[in-house]
Amino acid sequence: MYRILKKSKKSKARLGLLHTTHGSIKTPFFMPVATKAAIKGLTINEVEDLGAEIILSNTYHNYLKPGLQTFKKFKGLHNFMQTTLPILTDSGGYQVFSLANLRKIKGNNIEFKSHLDGSQHILNPQKVIDIQVALHSDIMMVLDECVALPSTRAKSLLALERTTKWAQISLIYKKKLEKKNKAIKKQLLFAIVQGADYKDLRLRSAQELIAMNFAGYAIGGLAVGESQDIMYKVLDYTVPILPDNKPRYLMGVGYPENIIKAVKKGIDMFDCVIPTREARHGKLYIRTKRTLKNKFYKTININNSKFKNDKISINNTNIKEYSKAYLHHLFKTNEPLGLRLATLNNLEFYLKLMKDIRKDIKENRL
Amino acid sequence: MYRILKKSKKSKARLGLLHTTHGSIKTPFFMPVATKAAIKGLTINEVEDLGAEIILSNTYHNYLKPGLQTFKKFKGLHNFMQTTLPILTDSGGYQVFSLANLRKIKGNNIEFKSHLDGSQHILNPQKVIDIQVALHSDIMMVLDECVALPSTRAKSLLALERTTKWAQISLIYKKKLEKKNKAIKKQLLFAIVQGADYKDLRLRSAQELIAMNFAGYAIGGLAVGESQDIMYKVLDYTVPILPDNKPRYLMGVGYPENIIKAVKKGIDMFDCVIPTREARHGKLYIRTKRTLKNKFYKTININNSKFKNDKISINNTNIKEYSKAYLHHLFKTNEPLGLRLATLNNLEFYLKLMKDIRKDIKENRL
Repeated sequence: MYRILKKSKKSKARLGLLHTTHGSIKTPFFMPVATKAAIKGLTINEVEDLGAEIILSNTYHNYLKPGLQTFKKFKGLHNFMQTTLPILTDSGGYQVFSLANLRKIKGNNIEFKSHLDGSQHILNPQKVIDIQVALHSDIMMVLDECVALPSTRAKSLLALERTTKWAQISLIYKKKLEKKNKAIKKQLLFAIVQGADYKDLRLRSAQELIAMNFAGYAIGGLAVGESQDIMYKVLDYTVPILPDNKPRYLMGVGYPENIIKAVKKGIDMFDCVIPTREARHGKLYIRTKRTLKNKFYKTININNSKFKNDKISINNTNIKEYSKAYLHHLFKTNEPLGLRLATLNNLEFYLKLMKDIRKDIKENRL
Repeated sequence: MYRILKKSKKSKARLGLLHTTHGSIKTPFFMPVATKAAIKGLTINEVEDLGAEIILSNTYHNYLKPGLQTFKKFKGLHNFMQTTLPILTDSGGYQVFSLANLRKIKGNNIEFKSHLDGSQHILNPQKVIDIQVALHSDIMMVLDECVALPSTRAKSLLALERTTKWAQISLIYKKKLEKKNKAIKKQLLFAIVQGADYKDLRLRSAQELIAMNFAGYAIGGLAVGESQDIMYKVLDYTVPILPDNKPRYLMGVGYPENIIKAVKKGIDMFDCVIPTREARHGKLYIRTKRTLKNKFYKTININNSKFKNDKISINNTNIKEYSKAYLHHLFKTNEPLGLRLATLNNLEFYLKLMKDIRKDIKENRL
């Protein structure tokens, strides 16, 4: 399912090819986030035109709305959204722990109330697989327990043990489903390494999951409030023990410089709401130099009054026909076109960054 | 500036060609409304692709934000918005009377406070011309006083007299400016007939304005709370006395059936926020039959739960790749893509309607 095309001699970066039912994707890649089956103001064709080769959507959100019935009717999320791009769906674990109310864990069940309408729901490892089967996700994630940092050792250990147990249940359950429906065999299932910032816990989590032979391994529980130093340290001791021939996914990361550093540490896959969320607030990412140069980009807050009469456009982007003054005006007047153009700009920045990173590895610069 | 290509034998409808500095436009036409220099979530290229040949923007809104300084810097609204479509700007009269606070008329000055930040401003006939000169509007509207219906005779008469006086001032002032700057000569100036629903007042208003020889005549003060019967009655006695060789513009109207009836009564130009405003609320316009058939369209409220699993798309539109279920989902989850697709659908409906109306006149059906 995953093939390494080249290993860097300068770092632990790898070029690879990940095979999914909706095509093969070059790694390292970044997944634009379509939390609720849409990417802020953009059509999926636009996202594809920007160079996205895969997108991420959310099990928890899709399960609550539109709900399973819709996905069964449409035979999956691809048909519903009208895309042929591969889709990775995160398990909903993070959202249940961060968004849902009155959350209780009883055995393998997480009981919670919807953040939308307070309705009562249960998720467990099997149900999360069922939902992702209904979504026809190309890459499914196991249900995990994600703790915010800092976290006590006891709490981190409990979350790790639960995550390992749930991963095992998920794998067994998926294999059972595959017997009835061979198509499910083609859906990749990834495990999520937890363990907070305790080295021994991270190693234990990784080893337990590796022993089960998943299609890929994610590192979860980072970018949850810790410093970047801690994040890099966790990567430094976790990534090396992950199997070489499986894709490695750093969940929810991050800023451009985080992505480059993580690629150098051997990470292949990324997702993050930063480009879309910051677009909403008028923060625009602008490339100024080559990827590997110091300070190779800057951000501007387009709401700043200094742009009021700025006729210059943001170069080399899909929105270059518009001046900064016009973008400023759209934000100051809350015109929805502003969000759309800002999202287009930021996603283009991120996707171009990944393309350049792949080129840098290929041409021995990174 | 205006040439009639064909007069219907079945009704008072006309086919015509209106010449502006940004090209000639076939009448009857509908102007999508870019109140604040943008059309809800759409790029101007998309609006052009939908078949728009001219758009409308707003003097009052553009004057407050981004303000004159920006338009002077950009040499007009076209450069600011990045369009080569002709632009009609309404005078701001309607907005000052409907939106602004603490409005006082002193002589020819309207003193008011901005609805945005409470700042104090003055508009008068000359300043409204100055703003529209700065906007480089292809079609400028004179400052008028628009009264909501029902209105007393005394109040309506006062508004009429003021509107006539301001029209005269505007015309004289524009001619003065033309001497300094010949380009202004190419900006068309339209007068606005007022007089509420008093036949003698409407006739008087029209006659006084016709005597001044404007480039076109608008009928204002309709679609301001009156019944459709009253509106049609006003058109029945007002349109026939307007000069044959000048374009006639019914401001702020309306629903598709209103437009067809008004075309039959001799109206050439329309603008209305209905397609964009109703898109925002999820009301979608759908053509079901030929233009002249009874009930030739329907509307649906895409928020209705009956669309939750509806796999059928809205045919013959720019959004036909998406199912109603997906549109429903976008609205129920407040995804900005929903507004964008709904606006696209409704503007396409309106612009196609006008195209069909022109064809119906040409082929002797209307």
